[in-house]
Amino acid sequence: MEYRRIKDQDKDEDSVHDDLESLRGKSHSGPPSNLVALVGGSADHTKWKRKSAVTLALTVLTSSQAILIVWSKRAGKYEYSVTTANFLVETLKCALSLAALARIWRNEGVTDDNRLSTTWDEVSVYPIPAALYLVKNLLQYYIFAYVDAPGYQILKNFNIISTGVLYRIILKRKLNEIQWAAFALLCAGCTTAQLNSNSDKVLQTPLQGWMMAIVMALLSGFAGVYTEAIIKKRPSRNINVQNFWLYVFGMIFNVIAIVVQDFDAVTNKGFFHGYSFITVLMILNHALSGIAVSMVMKYADNIVKVYSTSVAMLLTAVVSVFLFGFHLSLAFFLGSTVVSISVYLHSIGKVQR
Amino acid sequence: MEYRRIKDQDKDEDSVHDDLESLRGKSHSGPPSNLVALVGGSADHTKWKRKSAVTLALTVLTSSQAILIVWSKRAGKYEYSVTTANFLVETLKCALSLAALARIWRNEGVTDDNRLSTTWDEVSVYPIPAALYLVKNLLQYYIFAYVDAPGYQILKNFNIISTGVLYRIILKRKLNEIQWAAFALLCAGCTTAQLNSNSDKVLQTPLQGWMMAIVMALLSGFAGVYTEAIIKKRPSRNINVQNFWLYVFGMIFNVIAIVVQDFDAVTNKGFFHGYSFITVLMILNHALSGIAVSMVMKYADNIVKVYSTSVAMLLTAVVSVFLFGFHLSLAFFLGSTVVSISVYLHSIGKVQR
Repeated sequence: MEYRRIKDQDKDEDSVHDDLESLRGKSHSGPPSNLVALVGGSADHTKWKRKSAVTLALTVLTSSQAILIVWSKRAGKYEYSVTTANFLVETLKCALSLAALARIWRNEGVTDDNRLSTTWDEVSVYPIPAALYLVKNLLQYYIFAYVDAPGYQILKNFNIISTGVLYRIILKRKLNEIQWAAFALLCAGCTTAQLNSNSDKVLQTPLQGWMMAIVMALLSGFAGVYTEAIIKKRPSRNINVQNFWLYVFGMIFNVIAIVVQDFDAVTNKGFFHGYSFITVLMILNHALSGIAVSMVMKYADNIVKVYSTSVAMLLTAVVSVFLFGFHLSLAFFLGSTVVSISVYLHSIGKVQR
Repeated sequence: MEYRRIKDQDKDEDSVHDDLESLRGKSHSGPPSNLVALVGGSADHTKWKRKSAVTLALTVLTSSQAILIVWSKRAGKYEYSVTTANFLVETLKCALSLAALARIWRNEGVTDDNRLSTTWDEVSVYPIPAALYLVKNLLQYYIFAYVDAPGYQILKNFNIISTGVLYRIILKRKLNEIQWAAFALLCAGCTTAQLNSNSDKVLQTPLQGWMMAIVMALLSGFAGVYTEAIIKKRPSRNINVQNFWLYVFGMIFNVIAIVVQDFDAVTNKGFFHGYSFITVLMILNHALSGIAVSMVMKYADNIVKVYSTSVAMLLTAVVSVFLFGFHLSLAFFLGSTVVSISVYLHSIGKVQR
């Protein structure tokens, strides 16, 4: 109901969205930018640069994230509560958004677009993505009854398809036939790159496992697409304000997760039990990646996000060869080839749209 | 030198080739067809139907070919000389071409396009594909010093790329960017579908093995593309005459192969030693597949041939599930998905050309 309203408004805005962004989106950054915005070519170039920068940041942060996970696994098992770490990630993101806002207020003063106070109408949708992620994360504990961890990694590629489908249905953005083909290839390529000698076990997953994997993919895809809808609904609103509200609800829902999953561990062993230097690095990395995701939602879209994180997965594997002496499989080369062609086709498709 | 001449003539004909075929190609089949040829839409439809029929025939014959090979392996090892079987395949193809010609002569009389006698200029190029295949088949015995049989199956997918590249260079036909992407995907998809737990061994292939695989792929691709050049050089010439001359040289070169490889076995144990019912079926199948390949070269092209045989490989695997109780791997599903998308993109690319 709530998202339908957003969707409809979003649809109306969609056709004029690009014009709006080049005129409105820069209205708070002073006269020089306004001039730039009026000169079409330069404005497009600025938008393109900003979009590329946030996409690159997301790719680099996501791939270093996976490397930190491998590193932490080598150093031993997770000794800390994952839920407390997630809570700290949300808190750090909130703090960083506030710090960015403080700087903007100092430089530009408080305007309608960057003030923190908000209306019920604006804030009421912000808890939804956080709630969806919470449900997904809770489900994650149950799916391991049906699939092992490497199998789950493979099933997670459903996320790619669900994001594409929900992006089409909820945001009403069109992908052309080449871009759809590219998207299916991205999913097949990522899965191929992850194949190993045990992967066929995933085909024996019971029906409940498949259903849960699909539901989790839909929850995750829906949360991503819904976040984009929320952020894009108000193109001129400062992204740091939008992030602040998203992350506040992220903090609240992670408190619920701590109580549900790790209440005993936290009360007995303490909130920070098992934290190490690498845990701190991972929290820092997750926080920065999270902010990069929001930026990609604001200045690009969920499709770019999926491509970015998929390419990051491949980069991680290549970097791991040098860092950890990993061997790349033939399946990895084939999967990477398919993913590369998918990226190429997506960009060709964009031109032909 | 020789092929360059053909190429240049072919290039000149290329732009008017389609018009030529609808006017000239049917001039020997009597008044009704001429009428059809003048009505553009129907002529296109007839061409499309003929192209589809030969492509379908090739796909079905190629996939049943692989099934016969699996069946014969189950029944025991090859006891017969492969070179004598190849010779019989060429002889049978020759006989079938002559039988088809005899029928045409009876119905339509002998014309310039369907007479068997030929000029030195026409016939001088026919030995070349047969010679190339001979060299390739002889090399095949040496490559197994560097790669095992499953590894060789994987390396054979270089054929797809070499055919595409030589098709572009020698026949000067253009594939657009989407079709090139589709072709690379076809190669990656077929290789993915063939992956098994031992496939990574192929990455340890020594340099000589890689070089031989590439040379063999180039020989095979060159033979295919050159055959198309020969057949298309004279669009109005009856395909059965062209086949007859191709297969006559196939017979001659296979005699050379018998002498080089199986002289002792044939003189000691006899020409037909080790033949069984399934050997006869395989020879029959190979002969019909060979004729289907020629037809595809005449009425379609090498690209269609490659797609047809690749899809046949996937069909074989699916049929083998029912016939031999094979299990399909996750890699097979992923590879099949990529191949299917490749076929789709190729057809989209054709429309956009």
